[in-house]
Amino acid sequence: MNALRALGLEGRRALILHHDDLGLTHAQNQAYLTLGWPTGSVILPAAWASGVRGEDLGVHLVLTSEWEAPRYRPLTPGKSLRDEAGFFPKSPEEVWKKARAEEVEAELRAQIEAAFRLFSPTHLDSHQGSLLRPDLAEIYLRLAEAYGLMPLLPAREDLEALGFPRDFLEGLAPLLERAPFPTLRLLDPYALPPKERLGFYLGLSHLPPGLYQLIHHSALPTPEGRALPDWETREADYFALSHPEVRRVLAEFYPVTWKDLREAWRKG
Amino acid sequence: MNALRALGLEGRRALILHHDDLGLTHAQNQAYLTLGWPTGSVILPAAWASGVRGEDLGVHLVLTSEWEAPRYRPLTPGKSLRDEAGFFPKSPEEVWKKARAEEVEAELRAQIEAAFRLFSPTHLDSHQGSLLRPDLAEIYLRLAEAYGLMPLLPAREDLEALGFPRDFLEGLAPLLERAPFPTLRLLDPYALPPKERLGFYLGLSHLPPGLYQLIHHSALPTPEGRALPDWETREADYFALSHPEVRRVLAEFYPVTWKDLREAWRKG
Repeated sequence: MNALRALGLEGRRALILHHDDLGLTHAQNQAYLTLGWPTGSVILPAAWASGVRGEDLGVHLVLTSEWEAPRYRPLTPGKSLRDEAGFFPKSPEEVWKKARAEEVEAELRAQIEAAFRLFSPTHLDSHQGSLLRPDLAEIYLRLAEAYGLMPLLPAREDLEALGFPRDFLEGLAPLLERAPFPTLRLLDPYALPPKERLGFYLGLSHLPPGLYQLIHHSALPTPEGRALPDWETREADYFALSHPEVRRVLAEFYPVTWKDLREAWRKG
Repeated sequence: MNALRALGLEGRRALILHHDDLGLTHAQNQAYLTLGWPTGSVILPAAWASGVRGEDLGVHLVLTSEWEAPRYRPLTPGKSLRDEAGFFPKSPEEVWKKARAEEVEAELRAQIEAAFRLFSPTHLDSHQGSLLRPDLAEIYLRLAEAYGLMPLLPAREDLEALGFPRDFLEGLAPLLERAPFPTLRLLDPYALPPKERLGFYLGLSHLPPGLYQLIHHSALPTPEGRALPDWETREADYFALSHPEVRRVLAEFYPVTWKDLREAWRKG
């Protein structure tokens, strides 16, 4: 599926401005409200999930809970999904090592169904790439079809750049080829030092035509937000995206939501 | 069991200074750290439970999740413990109406065991009085004995003053009489208007001898803390308990922990 064509935007530059990790903290949710863009995805097992309301929200499927606090637990009882204290494990590597596919499927279904009870989700994505293990990616794609939700699928070059295990890429290639969903170019400044953040956003002005998803982790500068060890990158996103020059650059792009994409996909 | 006698404090005024709702928010946890007293109890299904460390922590057993956000879910799958969105119900009345005793017992065990994986709990108490339904109170007392934890038991006059259903009191009386645990006088300014808070704390100076538990809900004045609709009463506790005159009054009491009480109880 050529998404730009389906959207009637061939040859244009189109952008989904995507707020990651909603529901994780109050600071993250408040940044979503303050910035005012519709698109983001919600961690359903996290404490503030019930406080997110918006027009274009997805399910940020999680199998990890990487911080000391806040931490969250699986919604389902699968033993292969939790550490000794009952929380999701802290890293995707632990997930890849021990998660049983049938327990993952039950958990992802529970998260998706929990989302439907709180809002009308438009799309799916995967926290920390936990679902890149090919047998889990197959579940991800199957559930997207089953629930009528668009899955975030990075373009092959972006997937390669993420640095995941080589054999995963080989297993994922045929899945991605068969998948009846568009792939997107990912833009994600998370790993850049905060002082390079403004330059990153201003540099988006030079991008060629294409459908992009810009992933940001904006959070308000509050004591709770700063309890996360990576607060600096979250605040750097928030301040950069509040900057008038960055907003001018973002306005060069045709704004697209996952809702738009889903509509185009259903028609086409 | 006469607790004051067991503690060697007969005729004295002794005080457990108890911080409620730890784990609920970052603001609540930070107030605990800032105030510096050892005793409090933790909501295990809440997001910040994993971030509480302290010397005299208990399990704040919950069957309700009363705020729009943050909200939390049962740790166990019992259907009678959750609302349609999968969260604990919002009020004790809903719990009393529909919670099945065997599902409550499984959930309370899961919360206690989750606590043991994070810290060494010394005691149990019950959030919003959900466990006052007599068949649930029986479970509460039985689990306290089974796990070697002290249960908070209000003196009969305090129980009556809490305004719970009359038939509960009748069912509870024989349980309390049989229970091999001390009862305490409760002091809880939660429902007082914030402007009366300082007066309440200063007035403690006039109390007669006895073993008291002062229940406070201190939280730091932050945006996250203020997301709770009852933030004013939480901040009022925090500011009053930081006040030098209140600290002088509290110093009139012999400080007791649940750990002390448990030791006295074990000795007999």
